[in-house]
Amino acid sequence: MKIKLLKEREILTAIRNEFSESGKKLSVGIGDDAAVIRIQDKHLIVTKDMLVEDTHFIAASHPPFFLGRKSLNVNLSDVAAMGGKSKYAFLGIALPSRTRPGWVEEYFSGFKSAAEESGVILAGGDVSRSKKIAISVTVIGEGKTIIRRNGGKPGHLLFVSGTLGDSRQGLLLLKRGYKLEDDKTADPLLRAFLDPVPQASLAQSLSRAGLPSSMIDISDGLSMDLLNLCQECGCGAEIDQASLPLSLELCYWQRRPYDFALHGGEDYQLLFSIPAAKIRGLASLQEKYKITCIGKLVDKKGLSLIDRHGKRRNLQVKGFDHFK
Amino acid sequence: MKIKLLKEREILTAIRNEFSESGKKLSVGIGDDAAVIRIQDKHLIVTKDMLVEDTHFIAASHPPFFLGRKSLNVNLSDVAAMGGKSKYAFLGIALPSRTRPGWVEEYFSGFKSAAEESGVILAGGDVSRSKKIAISVTVIGEGKTIIRRNGGKPGHLLFVSGTLGDSRQGLLLLKRGYKLEDDKTADPLLRAFLDPVPQASLAQSLSRAGLPSSMIDISDGLSMDLLNLCQECGCGAEIDQASLPLSLELCYWQRRPYDFALHGGEDYQLLFSIPAAKIRGLASLQEKYKITCIGKLVDKKGLSLIDRHGKRRNLQVKGFDHFK
Repeated sequence: MKIKLLKEREILTAIRNEFSESGKKLSVGIGDDAAVIRIQDKHLIVTKDMLVEDTHFIAASHPPFFLGRKSLNVNLSDVAAMGGKSKYAFLGIALPSRTRPGWVEEYFSGFKSAAEESGVILAGGDVSRSKKIAISVTVIGEGKTIIRRNGGKPGHLLFVSGTLGDSRQGLLLLKRGYKLEDDKTADPLLRAFLDPVPQASLAQSLSRAGLPSSMIDISDGLSMDLLNLCQECGCGAEIDQASLPLSLELCYWQRRPYDFALHGGEDYQLLFSIPAAKIRGLASLQEKYKITCIGKLVDKKGLSLIDRHGKRRNLQVKGFDHFK
Repeated sequence: MKIKLLKEREILTAIRNEFSESGKKLSVGIGDDAAVIRIQDKHLIVTKDMLVEDTHFIAASHPPFFLGRKSLNVNLSDVAAMGGKSKYAFLGIALPSRTRPGWVEEYFSGFKSAAEESGVILAGGDVSRSKKIAISVTVIGEGKTIIRRNGGKPGHLLFVSGTLGDSRQGLLLLKRGYKLEDDKTADPLLRAFLDPVPQASLAQSLSRAGLPSSMIDISDGLSMDLLNLCQECGCGAEIDQASLPLSLELCYWQRRPYDFALHGGEDYQLLFSIPAAKIRGLASLQEKYKITCIGKLVDKKGLSLIDRHGKRRNLQVKGFDHFK
């Protein structure tokens, strides 16, 4: 394996190549939202996410109850994006010796509340010491059919759930010192970052209805995750900027809301493609969930954006990379 | 959940109590070497271990190739102690931006070598940034019969594999600046710490032969792990100090080798109990593996030690606790 620059993407690609031989035995290996292993006739979906203090969260501004919820929920989001149902969680946590016992209690109380909401069982764990808080959660889920990132084809329409960019704006407000309940218009944005809600119920409904040809959760920002999806599908995409779903709060706080919707990370909304012939199947879901068509997959590789003046331009990928 | 002091043991107990309700659905929950979940008629053994820079290893003195091997192998040791066979690994790694690309390459090269030796597939991963290196590995294994910690009964004889205390002495030498190939008598000790070998093959042979009534891997030190085993079995143990297996190298470098054998951490040897009636089954294994009888389980709770003068005294638990 040769690694020249220490970028997250490059490391993942190097790992993927290095371990490709053994990976052939897997249903879905490195490169999707989660890995899929087959045990008899069941698909097990396994996901693993790490949250490190000062990289993914600031301990002083992230209430531990919400951090407990988020550390589980970001994994549930990955399993949901594969069309699976989360069943078991495993928690590894490394804590500095200065950590307040109250912090630990609140953290677990949050973790538990998210586990109960999702019917997930905490099955194992590991506690150790470190200078900075490091949290690693593994979730195992089950799925009858697996929705991959690579099933989309040119012509399939692209959809997202919820609104985009709120979490990034929430992080910005947090850094400026805003706290929950300081300001009613800030609260939904702060919550989007502090306590994101995995779209598990929508993902399962989509999967049951057999609608998505490909699906991914938006964790690195729409442009980055769309690029990931397109690379797996072997095609390109065209996004209609005016269609991007924005919250009123984002528009209130941010002059460049479309930039945030396109490139802000940690939305944990779903991005999925559906063949045009199946679109009618979405109608019943739209009563319950906010779902927006934002463009389509196209033959030509690369991403393009139809801007608000109807002009087409290249969509630059500026997603969130921890190594930037 | 109420946590007064931030000790590893106390946190684990608090988690175990807090999540005990949901844990009832598990075959084996928090508190054993690994969790066991049941998928149809298969037992899946899931283990998760975190290695944090400056807590579990010093980056400057731990060659990355060995660290890669160790981060996988400590998990394989947990699965082995349950009588299972490791199948899939998931790796989460958080790296400082200053990390040399060569370090990452060597790390993965070590991880791969250990995976290949054990027939384990790297199925998924997650890379992110942090100030200190943090590594979290999850391994999923399969087992027909599961060997718990709680099956030992008074009268069952206690055995350990290999020699004890070498790893702790290796760490001590490492801290004093010794490196591999500096000194022939130091090398086996340094290796015991830097590149411990999981006792998977022995564990599987024991399991197939149906011998152990309880088993655990020695990661926190013999006294601590023996206490864990006894608490799960609801009995006590009596250890014969003179029987503890010591390496010549440990005796050469250390004036108090028995203390190191009793309390040194990270041996990754197996500790197991066998009913007296089944002892003959060990004979064939003893040709291939170093196995030593070190004492027995007894009715009376607590641990006692028969010292070299034949005197019985209480065995104080001084195992390795990251929070000390």
